[in-house]
Amino acid sequence: MHPTREEHDERLARTRARMQRSGLDGLVVVDPANLHYLTGYDAWSFYMPQLLFVPLVGEPLLIMRAMDAGGAHRTAQTPPERILGYPESLVHQRDVHPYDGAAQQLREHGFAQRGRIGYEAEAHFLTVGAFHALERGLPEWQLIDAHDLVNWVRLVKSEHELALMRSAGRIASAAMQAGIDALSEGVRLNDVAAAIQYAQTTGVDGAEGDYPAIVPMLPTGESADTPHLTFSARRVEAGEAVSIELAGTHRRYHAPLARTVSLGRPEARLAGLADIAAEGLQAVLDGMRPGRVVADVHGIWREHLAQHAIEKPSRLGYSIGIGYPPDWGERTVSIREDDLTVIEPGMCLHIIAGMWMDGYGCELSESVAITATGVELLTSAPRELIVVGAA
Amino acid sequence: MHPTREEHDERLARTRARMQRSGLDGLVVVDPANLHYLTGYDAWSFYMPQLLFVPLVGEPLLIMRAMDAGGAHRTAQTPPERILGYPESLVHQRDVHPYDGAAQQLREHGFAQRGRIGYEAEAHFLTVGAFHALERGLPEWQLIDAHDLVNWVRLVKSEHELALMRSAGRIASAAMQAGIDALSEGVRLNDVAAAIQYAQTTGVDGAEGDYPAIVPMLPTGESADTPHLTFSARRVEAGEAVSIELAGTHRRYHAPLARTVSLGRPEARLAGLADIAAEGLQAVLDGMRPGRVVADVHGIWREHLAQHAIEKPSRLGYSIGIGYPPDWGERTVSIREDDLTVIEPGMCLHIIAGMWMDGYGCELSESVAITATGVELLTSAPRELIVVGAA
Repeated sequence: MHPTREEHDERLARTRARMQRSGLDGLVVVDPANLHYLTGYDAWSFYMPQLLFVPLVGEPLLIMRAMDAGGAHRTAQTPPERILGYPESLVHQRDVHPYDGAAQQLREHGFAQRGRIGYEAEAHFLTVGAFHALERGLPEWQLIDAHDLVNWVRLVKSEHELALMRSAGRIASAAMQAGIDALSEGVRLNDVAAAIQYAQTTGVDGAEGDYPAIVPMLPTGESADTPHLTFSARRVEAGEAVSIELAGTHRRYHAPLARTVSLGRPEARLAGLADIAAEGLQAVLDGMRPGRVVADVHGIWREHLAQHAIEKPSRLGYSIGIGYPPDWGERTVSIREDDLTVIEPGMCLHIIAGMWMDGYGCELSESVAITATGVELLTSAPRELIVVGAA
Repeated sequence: MHPTREEHDERLARTRARMQRSGLDGLVVVDPANLHYLTGYDAWSFYMPQLLFVPLVGEPLLIMRAMDAGGAHRTAQTPPERILGYPESLVHQRDVHPYDGAAQQLREHGFAQRGRIGYEAEAHFLTVGAFHALERGLPEWQLIDAHDLVNWVRLVKSEHELALMRSAGRIASAAMQAGIDALSEGVRLNDVAAAIQYAQTTGVDGAEGDYPAIVPMLPTGESADTPHLTFSARRVEAGEAVSIELAGTHRRYHAPLARTVSLGRPEARLAGLADIAAEGLQAVLDGMRPGRVVADVHGIWREHLAQHAIEKPSRLGYSIGIGYPPDWGERTVSIREDDLTVIEPGMCLHIIAGMWMDGYGCELSESVAITATGVELLTSAPRELIVVGAA
């Protein structure tokens, strides 16, 4: 179920190797996915300030709200004496910050030495107020943008992680089917979302569901020309198409999946667009293998679209793995023309053809793991514009 | 359904009045709940940099990722020409930031004047990287911590908002009942969560569900001595108690509700604790009315606990309303001994007796709206340790 002690040690060692290459003496980790990766900690406490301090040498220190330290004792592999709580009196005050307490605790534990200390400039939940409290409380530190350092350590998955990703993929496929089954004329979008969520959380045989970092997104009809709309009580009409984007989640690992479902016969322009997307996605899957550069694989997609006189500025996908709200993307590899990452076995990607046109659109995606020779599909659903009968 | 144009104008006017009192010439708003409050915008795009700039005089400017600007056109009341997209080429890059583009756009729209500009130092989703890009791109600005300025504007709800809160409360009550009904010996916690989520998203007669800012939290058995644990495939055993904390959500408004459910006869110490919590909560509800100071109401609770030789450092509740992940709290009023806010009609609070002891615990709460004379309960469930039969 949990990674072994050795796997956690190895994650920490790889983090430190990368810190050393970046000339960092310590690292302040806030991204909840990174906290989970390095310690196993898992609870809904990330809306309050918390941090893991990773010194280049010595034991890390986990600092969180006192009432959440108990949850850390129960889920994190961090030794109990290295889990510290800051007092409730620091929460939501104007003149003091929880990180004032954290800075004091770091000082008391001998970490207030001169040095280059990395922080996660783009992590959610490291607030500007927290950053300023660090600057104030630990003036010895030279704070350096660590550029999602731990996220990059997470990029290549272990066998243990790949097993979790496969389970997440199976849940995604089941949740997509639940969404397709729930769609009929006159149904409210929130009822479609409820059916999807039920499938996401119960899971599949042998793999329970966990909460996805993002709720089901269901852009519908004309609004399907834009992503990221969630759901409402709007009723689906005959002839409309609904784009379903969701993830299967198992023990915090995510496999996203997107399909567009037409209620009755689709408009010709939508059907044509979906065919182009499906062909392009297949070509990309065929061309993706270890040793190739991400940008070159993106070229396959760009050339395919160019043949159909379509230009799509948004990226074709991104790396996936552990996720917490608000994002299941890993913020590392982006499948686009300027990403020079060399593809390696064990990377996991969500490849999404999101075709947002003017007044219509479709989405078609798969989650994949890179193997020694190509890709392993983690998700499964008919790779086409799915048509369900209007009632 | 939506607030009137007048209500939106009035919200903006009250925001500006507070800006003026704080000596601010402009305000950078990032908190998605504040964006929704001021513009109506609603989509899952907050994991990417975006902002609303509110000048003291003149029309606000909404800046977001280009692919999300379409969603803004569909949900925000902001005039289309005041919604700007930054290009995809700025997303997840090392050397440039979306806020570099935003700063440039603010400059082009005449906002690069010398002045005191507020920012939300504790808002989720204003990253340190974004803040530094603002400093870099708009050196004319003196950036000032605005201390959750718009959150405070949201504190007293309008009649329109109170109607939404009542619907959210009805959904919370139904979701709690669904959770209670799902609990039986041997059931997995994720299946209990699935039943709750289904009820949350379908909603109740006349009020569809929306996604809560937090998933159902189900600390169980010994782990019920700590809050914020979510759910897993752990099976509930006879004699164990599960604390259920959830929210009903309607059109982004939240009414949270917590109860502890015992599977079969509870331990005596837990039953005693629950009685103390229930009596104390009732005393607080009886004592809460306009004109009183929050700290004094908290005193009722503290004295009640003291009679039972219990000390509870965490706050007894907080203000609620619009919520987005990761938090349904408003970050304004905290029911604790140092909060000197005077209670006013239209405030909405989640009053939560969270009794986290050593190896056991219980949670008991209500969401309320302050009326002219006292409180209106928004949520409804038996106010006691709920006992369900072990199978």
